[in-house]
Amino acid sequence: MGKNVVIVGGGFAGISAAKKLANTSYKITIVDKTNHHLFQPLLYQVATAALSPGDIAMPIRAIFSKQKNVQVILGEVTRVDKDQNRIYLRNGSSLPFHYLILAPGAQYNYFGNEKWKEHAPGLKSLSDALEIRERILLSLEKAEQIIDAEKRKPFLTYVVIGGGPTGVEMAGSIAEIAKRSMMRDFRNIRPEETTIYLIEAAEGILNGFDKPLPEKGLQTLKDMGVEVLLNSPVEEIREDGVQVDGQFIETPNIIWGAGVKASPIIQELGIETDRMGRAMVEGDLSISGSPNIFVAGDAAHVKDERGNPLPGLAPVALQQGKYLGNIIKQSSSNRKPFHYVDKGTMATIGRAKAVADIRGFKFSGFFAWLLWGLIHIFFLIGFRNRFRVFAEWTWHYITFKRGVRLIAKKE
Amino acid sequence: MGKNVVIVGGGFAGISAAKKLANTSYKITIVDKTNHHLFQPLLYQVATAALSPGDIAMPIRAIFSKQKNVQVILGEVTRVDKDQNRIYLRNGSSLPFHYLILAPGAQYNYFGNEKWKEHAPGLKSLSDALEIRERILLSLEKAEQIIDAEKRKPFLTYVVIGGGPTGVEMAGSIAEIAKRSMMRDFRNIRPEETTIYLIEAAEGILNGFDKPLPEKGLQTLKDMGVEVLLNSPVEEIREDGVQVDGQFIETPNIIWGAGVKASPIIQELGIETDRMGRAMVEGDLSISGSPNIFVAGDAAHVKDERGNPLPGLAPVALQQGKYLGNIIKQSSSNRKPFHYVDKGTMATIGRAKAVADIRGFKFSGFFAWLLWGLIHIFFLIGFRNRFRVFAEWTWHYITFKRGVRLIAKKE
Repeated sequence: MGKNVVIVGGGFAGISAAKKLANTSYKITIVDKTNHHLFQPLLYQVATAALSPGDIAMPIRAIFSKQKNVQVILGEVTRVDKDQNRIYLRNGSSLPFHYLILAPGAQYNYFGNEKWKEHAPGLKSLSDALEIRERILLSLEKAEQIIDAEKRKPFLTYVVIGGGPTGVEMAGSIAEIAKRSMMRDFRNIRPEETTIYLIEAAEGILNGFDKPLPEKGLQTLKDMGVEVLLNSPVEEIREDGVQVDGQFIETPNIIWGAGVKASPIIQELGIETDRMGRAMVEGDLSISGSPNIFVAGDAAHVKDERGNPLPGLAPVALQQGKYLGNIIKQSSSNRKPFHYVDKGTMATIGRAKAVADIRGFKFSGFFAWLLWGLIHIFFLIGFRNRFRVFAEWTWHYITFKRGVRLIAKKE
Repeated sequence: MGKNVVIVGGGFAGISAAKKLANTSYKITIVDKTNHHLFQPLLYQVATAALSPGDIAMPIRAIFSKQKNVQVILGEVTRVDKDQNRIYLRNGSSLPFHYLILAPGAQYNYFGNEKWKEHAPGLKSLSDALEIRERILLSLEKAEQIIDAEKRKPFLTYVVIGGGPTGVEMAGSIAEIAKRSMMRDFRNIRPEETTIYLIEAAEGILNGFDKPLPEKGLQTLKDMGVEVLLNSPVEEIREDGVQVDGQFIETPNIIWGAGVKASPIIQELGIETDRMGRAMVEGDLSISGSPNIFVAGDAAHVKDERGNPLPGLAPVALQQGKYLGNIIKQSSSNRKPFHYVDKGTMATIGRAKAVADIRGFKFSGFFAWLLWGLIHIFFLIGFRNRFRVFAEWTWHYITFKRGVRLIAKKE
C-alpha cells in the first residue's frame, strides 16, 4: 500500500526529510555511500584531533531505529531513470520510487587540477578528516626527530587553502595545536617554529559574512599567529609544497578548502546545472519535467529573494529536507514554493573565539564561541553525541589538551 | 650527566618502567612504532564497535607530558648492538644506551600459514580492531541487501579461532551485537539467522583459569548462542571460509586469536629463545652476558615458582616494568630476582557476564563483570580515558546500544 520514497544521501537534507515522514504510510529507503550521518560542521575538529569520529557521526540506521517505515541501504547510485522511476546502484540492484529526493552533497573542486587532490586533501568525510589528522600528527613526530631547525621547518609549516568558514576553522584549529596545546608534549620542537598560512584568492576571508565580522575574523587569525595571504590564487601544488604569490612554500602539509562542486550523480539527471554542477531546480525543489523528483542540500541551486543561490550550509539543507518531507506528506498538486529563513551564520576560530551573525546581531569573541558551541551541540543528532561532544569540549577548554591525537594507520 | 635509558615499546611494561624513573637523573627515550599506548584488554571492544579508539589509547608523549626526563620517538627498531650499546632504527638513526629495556610485545602466530593472515586478522593493534570492526559492520550491511536467506547466511556467520580470553571475549561480544543490540536497526536480517563459532584445538577453553571457571564460561557462551567447537584444530583458511573438523564453514568473517609469538626484534639479540620466540631471561630479566639489557612483557620468557612461563597478560608486564624501573633506579650490582604476585585473572563474556579468579576466590556472572569493569577502568591510563569508558559502558548497559558503529574507510 505504502508508496516508495527513495532518498539518496544521509546528510542533513535526507535525514530531515525522512524524519518528517514518520508515522505516514510511505515506505522510505535511504541510500548512502557510508553507513553514517556526519555532522560536517565539526569535521575539522576530527581533523585536528579534538574530537573522535564517533562524536560527530551516527549510523543512519541507528537514527531511524524506531522509525519502522525507514530502511537503510549502504550503496552508491550510478543512474537515475526518470521515465521508469527507478534508480540503479553500483552493485547492480535497482530501487523503484514514487518520489525521489536526491541529496548527495558536494565534493571538493580542484578546478581541473585533479593531481592537486593527492597532495592537498579536502575535508568532506571521516576518511578525509582521519587522513588529515594523521598527516598533522606525523609531521610533528617527524619534526621532533630532526635536529637541524632549517631541515625541520617544512614539517612545521601548514598551508590551508580557502578563506571560507572551513578554511578559517582549520587554520585557527591548527594554530591552536601547533602553538599551544600540544607543544608541551614535545622536547625538541617549539611553538615559535610553526608557521600556518591561510591562502585566499579573493580580497578577503569569510565572504558572505557581513561587516565587521570578516575583519574581526582576520584579526583573530593574525593574533593566533596565522599568516593570511589575500589576493593570492594558488598557482601550483606539488608533493613538497605550494607555489603562490611569487613564493614557494615548502611543506607536505596542505589542506584544500577552496571550492566545491555537486556530486556527479546530478549530471545523470539530464537537466540544467550551474557552474558548480548543482541542479537548477524549480520553486518546489523538483527538477524540470519531473514533479516527483527533487534535489536538495549542497547539490541544489536554489535562489533566495534577491536571486542569489543559497549557500551550501547545514541550516539550508535542514530546512529544505523538512520542506520536502511536508510536500510529500501533503501530496497536493498545489505546492507552496520553498522559502529559506536565515537564522544566522557562524564560524569558530580556535579555542574561545568565533564570529556570529544571528538575525542581524553581530557577535564576536568569547560569547560568539559559546553560542556557536551550544548551537552545534543542539543540532547534533542523538543525545549521546551531544553529551560526548559537550564533555570533550569542556575537558579541552579546561586542560588545553586535545583529545584524540592518535595515529592508527590501517596497514 | 644523566645516563641514557632506552625503552623499546610503549605498552604496559615500557610505560611502567619509565614512570618509575620519574624524578631521577636518567634520560629516558621511549621508542614505539605507533604514537600511542594501547590498553589491549579492551581492544576487542573497539573491534565490536562498543568503544572508540580514543577511549582506550593515549599518546605516549601525552602520558609523559609532565615527566621532563622522558622523550618519545616514533620509530621501529631494526638492530641491537650489544657491544656498542646502541640501537638502530628503520629511518637510519641510532640511539646510545646505558640501559636498554626491550618490551616490544607479541604478534599473532599463524604457525607457518602466513597466507591465513590476510583472511583471518588478529587483534593486536588499533588498525586490527578497526579492520575487524569494518568487516563485521559491512557483513551486516551486505546481508541486509540479500533477499535469499541461504545466500546471505555466510555474511551472518562469524568464526573466532582460539579459546583463550581474547577469543572468548570476541565471540561473546559478537554474539551480543548480532543477536541483540544492533538487530533492531535492520529491517530484513534477523538475530536468529546469525551463527557464531568459537573454534579451539584443545579440549577446553580458558586454559589457565582454574575450575569451575572454564565450564561456566563455556555455558555462558552457549547460552548466548555461540557454537563452541573443541578438539578442532583449523585445517585450512580461505577467503570464503574455514575448513575445520570435517566441515567447511562458509564465511568471510574470520578472526584469529589462536597463537602468539614475540616481536621479531628479539631474534636480533643472539640469545636463547623459546618456541614462541620469547627471550629466555635471567632472574633479573636481563639477557645472558649483558646485565644492562633487559626484556620484559609478552616478549620475555620468565618462569614462575613452579617453573612454568608467566602468561602474556597485562598485570605481568606491569609488574615487570615497575621491577625494572626499580632495578635501574637502585643501580646496585646485587639484584633481587623478579617475583610475580598473581592478583587474579578475569575474562568478560558479553554484556554482564564474566569469569574471575581473584586470589583464589572464584566469581562468575554479573558480579564478576562489575569487578572486571572497575578493575579495567582503574588500570586505564589517564583520568579522561577512565571517565569516557565509564560513561560509554553506562550508556551501553542502559540502552543496549553499542557506541561506535562507523564504517569510515580510508580511500
